Amino acid sequence: VTVLRTNALLVEKGNYRHFMEKEIHEQPDVLSRTLAHYLDFGTGTARPPGDGKIDFAALPRLSITACGTANYAGLVGKYWFEQLARLPVDIDVASEFRYREAPLTPGGLALFISQSGETADTLASLRYCREGGQTIASIVNVPTSTIARESDLAIPTLAGPEIGVASTKAFTCQLAVLASLAVAAGRARGHLDVAAEQALVAALGEVPRLVSDALALEGTIEAIARRLHRVSDVLYLGRGIAYPIALEGALKLKELSYIHAEGYAAGELKHGPIALIDEDVPVVVIAPFDRLFEKTASNMQEVAARGGRIVLITDQKGLEHAGITPAEVILMPEMPEAIMPIVYTVPIQLLAYYMAVANGTDVDQPRNLAKSVTVE
Amino acid sequence: VTVLRTNALLVEKGNYRHFMEKEIHEQPDVLSRTLAHYLDFGTGTARPPGDGKIDFAALPRLSITACGTANYAGLVGKYWFEQLARLPVDIDVASEFRYREAPLTPGGLALFISQSGETADTLASLRYCREGGQTIASIVNVPTSTIARESDLAIPTLAGPEIGVASTKAFTCQLAVLASLAVAAGRARGHLDVAAEQALVAALGEVPRLVSDALALEGTIEAIARRLHRVSDVLYLGRGIAYPIALEGALKLKELSYIHAEGYAAGELKHGPIALIDEDVPVVVIAPFDRLFEKTASNMQEVAARGGRIVLITDQKGLEHAGITPAEVILMPEMPEAIMPIVYTVPIQLLAYYMAVANGTDVDQPRNLAKSVTVE
Repeated sequence: VTVLRTNALLVEKGNYRHFMEKEIHEQPDVLSRTLAHYLDFGTGTARPPGDGKIDFAALPRLSITACGTANYAGLVGKYWFEQLARLPVDIDVASEFRYREAPLTPGGLALFISQSGETADTLASLRYCREGGQTIASIVNVPTSTIARESDLAIPTLAGPEIGVASTKAFTCQLAVLASLAVAAGRARGHLDVAAEQALVAALGEVPRLVSDALALEGTIEAIARRLHRVSDVLYLGRGIAYPIALEGALKLKELSYIHAEGYAAGELKHGPIALIDEDVPVVVIAPFDRLFEKTASNMQEVAARGGRIVLITDQKGLEHAGITPAEVILMPEMPEAIMPIVYTVPIQLLAYYMAVANGTDVDQPRNLAKSVTVE
Repeated sequence: VTVLRTNALLVEKGNYRHFMEKEIHEQPDVLSRTLAHYLDFGTGTARPPGDGKIDFAALPRLSITACGTANYAGLVGKYWFEQLARLPVDIDVASEFRYREAPLTPGGLALFISQSGETADTLASLRYCREGGQTIASIVNVPTSTIARESDLAIPTLAGPEIGVASTKAFTCQLAVLASLAVAAGRARGHLDVAAEQALVAALGEVPRLVSDALALEGTIEAIARRLHRVSDVLYLGRGIAYPIALEGALKLKELSYIHAEGYAAGELKHGPIALIDEDVPVVVIAPFDRLFEKTASNMQEVAARGGRIVLITDQKGLEHAGITPAEVILMPEMPEAIMPIVYTVPIQLLAYYMAVANGTDVDQPRNLAKSVTVE
């Protein structure tokens, strides 16, 4: 924490109004750097970190534990590890995990994610797993942090110092590391062949460019934010690997603008939250045109039928197949499904940022929040 | 569904204004009946359902899949199975589980929970697990339902027909079945000895009386609801096994009164949602005086320090150790930790019910909702 505070004084905002805006715009660069560290674009292969310290082929399970935004990165990781490597993943928020006396799988790998590397509940969970004989790995942005030091293997994100309290570039860099690890695991476990690994590495190589394309939507998103910022409630919906991005989108808006936003798995809408829907509640739907699009579109149509104001984040094909005319559209480039969580994070960051700016809240230092939560 | 609709015509509201109110008050009776079906109070033992069809001792893992309220029952079940039986549990919402190609553990048991037994996503998840070679069990309230018929073992809740769209007695009966199963599993796996099993069975035997005691708080809760009902946002906090009850409390309020309520693990508060807190946002804290109380109390004090209006649901000792004077208190009887989720559900049901009544919403048929979700 001391280290970070010192850096905060040295890091400049440049031409940006807020550190958060600057950090959002740094993402193409820091993602390039992080991805290049874990992927070899020449050969189209993932480099497993730690020189074989983790034997992915022998792993029975992976547990991921984190808090807040880092926990949503972990949830994306769960989808990746399970789909790309057929490696079963348990995920939990650290404040719950540490007290629920979770039975640990012998020989299991416990992975912790923390930007600061000092998050108190995450550190306590790490020590519980250490006592339980798990191999300990951590994804951290501060390599000198306690969590990094107490890990068998610290896997750094190369996001650089993050000053804005609401995490942006640290989150997408956590995703980049998790995707790279999942590809390495998939290859080691024999679930991905050489061609599949090459395709995934090539797709990840496109991330910085696609993130730049998404950043170019800033003007459109600012205009949407100006039309929406007076609302008091927002729902975010996603399905599959877009679900954690809905959770992260809601968290960002809540943190920055104090608007009560909530993320939901699109399929859960009918089991309760749809009762909230009326013309005053915008519903942000995160839905690239993928194999689950039709299901999400059907949930969206129900919202629209009840007067809900849809903000659709999709691509050209998704817009064509939406079956409704959304109130607002954020039109994303097409991309492979595997990299969608990283790129689709950008519009939800910009939306939260510009709604906060329109509301006049303190973007870099939201009320009641601390950058790293070092007490329980 | 047809069966249920027919019953709806035959079931009477008696002296109650709404089916929901009647069903809340039926809980001591239906819980007695359900518990007596799965527990032998004479010998202090749990009766494993299905005559040994499930070999709990040999189980590597249990997966629980459900939607909405039933999913929150499953989350309570996860805490019970892990603590009482050291049986690792994976839990997922059905609409996510069915599409994420989850790797299944060979020899695993897949448990599905559905009041109607017709929930479309839950049924699809069941069929995925059937193809994956899992043993299939289901906890259903309608024994003739599709989910019951497609299970290797259907485990009925004896809640009787539930007419109110927002589930109440079906939820607490699901909890009663899960607790009984967890005790049976704990005994079979050698984690509970005879004395521990007897103590747990005796504690479960007290549930109907304690639920009656909680129902006697109706007047207090109605008065609180009248003071609160105009708010637009509410947070519910719980830690450990109280966390799913916070989720369920928020869902009930959302469904019935269209107030934007959200449940959070108390330890996650500082990682974002605390930014929402001001004097307009009541925070319902579900915190019996247990081994985690001090941690939750510390989160509550942070809320209070930021002007949050605390509605504390606790017992006498919890009130004495709260460290603040809450705006509202719902004082519960003392009880063993294991049965807390069942009994503490009653005040959150009554609070949601009376806030909806005060708001004049259609309690038995909230807008946009269907009793059983038989489409995706």
